[in-house]
Amino acid sequence: MKIISGGVTAAKGFKAAGVHCGIRRNQSKKDLALIVSECEASAAGVYTSNLVKGAPVMVTMKHIAAGGKARAIICNSGNANTCCADGIEKAERMCALVSGHTGIAAEEVAVASTGVIGQSLPIEPIENAMPALVAALSADGSGDAAAAIMTTDTKVKERAVEFTLGGKICRMGGIAKGSGMIHPNMATMLVFVTTDAAVPAGTLQKILSADVRDTFNMVSVDGDTSTSDMVIVLANGKAENGPLSEADEKELAAALREITGYLCKMIAGDGEGATKLLECSVTGAATDGDARIAAKSVIGSSLFKAAMFGADANWGRVLCAVGYSGANVDVSRVDVSFESSAGRVDVCRMGFGVEFSEEEAKKVLSESEIKILIGLNSGSGSATAWGCDLTYDYVRINGDYRT
Amino acid sequence: MKIISGGVTAAKGFKAAGVHCGIRRNQSKKDLALIVSECEASAAGVYTSNLVKGAPVMVTMKHIAAGGKARAIICNSGNANTCCADGIEKAERMCALVSGHTGIAAEEVAVASTGVIGQSLPIEPIENAMPALVAALSADGSGDAAAAIMTTDTKVKERAVEFTLGGKICRMGGIAKGSGMIHPNMATMLVFVTTDAAVPAGTLQKILSADVRDTFNMVSVDGDTSTSDMVIVLANGKAENGPLSEADEKELAAALREITGYLCKMIAGDGEGATKLLECSVTGAATDGDARIAAKSVIGSSLFKAAMFGADANWGRVLCAVGYSGANVDVSRVDVSFESSAGRVDVCRMGFGVEFSEEEAKKVLSESEIKILIGLNSGSGSATAWGCDLTYDYVRINGDYRT
Repeated sequence: MKIISGGVTAAKGFKAAGVHCGIRRNQSKKDLALIVSECEASAAGVYTSNLVKGAPVMVTMKHIAAGGKARAIICNSGNANTCCADGIEKAERMCALVSGHTGIAAEEVAVASTGVIGQSLPIEPIENAMPALVAALSADGSGDAAAAIMTTDTKVKERAVEFTLGGKICRMGGIAKGSGMIHPNMATMLVFVTTDAAVPAGTLQKILSADVRDTFNMVSVDGDTSTSDMVIVLANGKAENGPLSEADEKELAAALREITGYLCKMIAGDGEGATKLLECSVTGAATDGDARIAAKSVIGSSLFKAAMFGADANWGRVLCAVGYSGANVDVSRVDVSFESSAGRVDVCRMGFGVEFSEEEAKKVLSESEIKILIGLNSGSGSATAWGCDLTYDYVRINGDYRT
Repeated sequence: MKIISGGVTAAKGFKAAGVHCGIRRNQSKKDLALIVSECEASAAGVYTSNLVKGAPVMVTMKHIAAGGKARAIICNSGNANTCCADGIEKAERMCALVSGHTGIAAEEVAVASTGVIGQSLPIEPIENAMPALVAALSADGSGDAAAAIMTTDTKVKERAVEFTLGGKICRMGGIAKGSGMIHPNMATMLVFVTTDAAVPAGTLQKILSADVRDTFNMVSVDGDTSTSDMVIVLANGKAENGPLSEADEKELAAALREITGYLCKMIAGDGEGATKLLECSVTGAATDGDARIAAKSVIGSSLFKAAMFGADANWGRVLCAVGYSGANVDVSRVDVSFESSAGRVDVCRMGFGVEFSEEEAKKVLSESEIKILIGLNSGSGSATAWGCDLTYDYVRINGDYRT
């Protein structure tokens, strides 16, 4: 497997585009994206577990569940089309617009929206922009589509790989957006992945569902599980590989993991207001489940996140978060270390503090990527979670998001 | 029942003191408190559910569990005496010091510590300050004790009431500290309550345990459950009331609720960096338990807390937090309103947004006490939770707490 460029248009037979349609006032910010496969494609999706689900989530779930197929994804930013009486109607209208301009059946269109909750989605800007959007579809349009789905994101998030199934070269690529309201549970913010591998919908769903448990479900920016989380994978078979062997399925899962793992780190590191990417690795847990619970608790602690912003080696907050996480942990066996490109400092052994150089720790924690290594010394379970620091800018961004 | 002054020294037979002993560098900040009953007293306690428990929590649990009795409480701020190899030894030494200077058995002393985790507690400053601390004990020393247990708190937290049991006038009063690492589970930060009512230890524990479920366990400042949470009630019988009737128990519980309810609001309103007290009331839930889960989820949402800081009526974040709370909720029946001394504004009816004046909402949300009223229209369960906004100062305080 090798890393290639191209995002969602790296795979054969996929085109994408992103334009400014006017849902967002800033004319230079693209706010409408379209991804299209030139032929039928298997589809799999995972969605928010929030009981409050955006109308686009409900429409997409229905479309993909019906036949395990989809050929297009349309997505706007600036308005989540959630908690509005006309939400379903608007989401279905977006699918119908794609159908009208491309000939793809409306039931084979996935739809997503991200932005403010509770304000009626203006449909006219989308209607008016459809001709330009479809005309802009291109085999190198991934970057425009990735830009169009961004909200408070500061970086375009793309990744693509090339790999081999049964002797045939395949490609897979994804784009993501995610910066605030990030604490996915069974899914994450918006992630769209395409591949030209031929994969039955059931297999695609199985591989995707297994993947998100260790990737997007292990990311937290602020503990808030969005109403609009969605990960969609389309596989159009243009690589012309044959039926998948067991080894092929593993290769496919590895390709997906390369893309989702990378996008996870990008989402966490680009969390609202973030200055640092935090990666918490728990090893030696009784079970993988305990490791996941503990790692996610540390990454979610506001106190710990603020300490990381200040490059303060306040490891007591790590132990505190492990202790209240609900994981089955023997607190008298916990080790904690901090690591970055500037070195590593051990701060806690077997539940008690050890002497360390504050100066050295400050140096380690002043880097932009920090690893928190937690050893539980109780078994062989392990997990990794990703998050970011809590900063003044998080408060600034969210103190006045709507205006 | 009437509100009186005096805090933990309002009840007959209790004295208290607070001095600066030197654990904290700032000489003008008291950091050592002592509360003493002149005679034997029933005792009840609730403690942190964090698996990582401070050494003082473990020692106090053992002392009170042994006989349901305690005559003194010693508490320092500036160091939590948690995750240190010599923690138990130091906590027991504090009890022995009280015993040596007052004649009270060490097993009848409760001990508490609050501050940084993982640094060995210096015992010499406490040893040296004991003569002055005991000499300072007085029947109006509650304020000094309340000041000595403060960390990042900005306000002294005291409350006392007078009530009648079987014709005898009784008094009850409490002090509290709590500002950060506040998300109690089965207990809260440090709360000490005294009463001169005669109450068997078993009854006292029953009333206390029932109370914390609806008071301290419904407060959240930052979602972090401390390792040092502790609520202790001492009842010394000096009011000479007889055995408690059922009506007496209700009166006693009401007196306790007056004190704990008030202290809860003080803790939430004085959360680290807070500019606003948030009170979230959920009604119409299927059960009280569902109401508690939903209310606490809203009060704990970083996104919602940041919106309140910005006086932004972003009610979508309220619905989002209700939706991911885990409470059994029909999201199509949810009503949301904001209320303060400046008025009331309805923002959501039956799960969908309603039109409202942004100007009016801004006025309502610019007050320092905000009520979030959530109607679930599904039953008769209800609950109230208290929290605060998320501000720049929370980040500043916790970005560099140890230095």
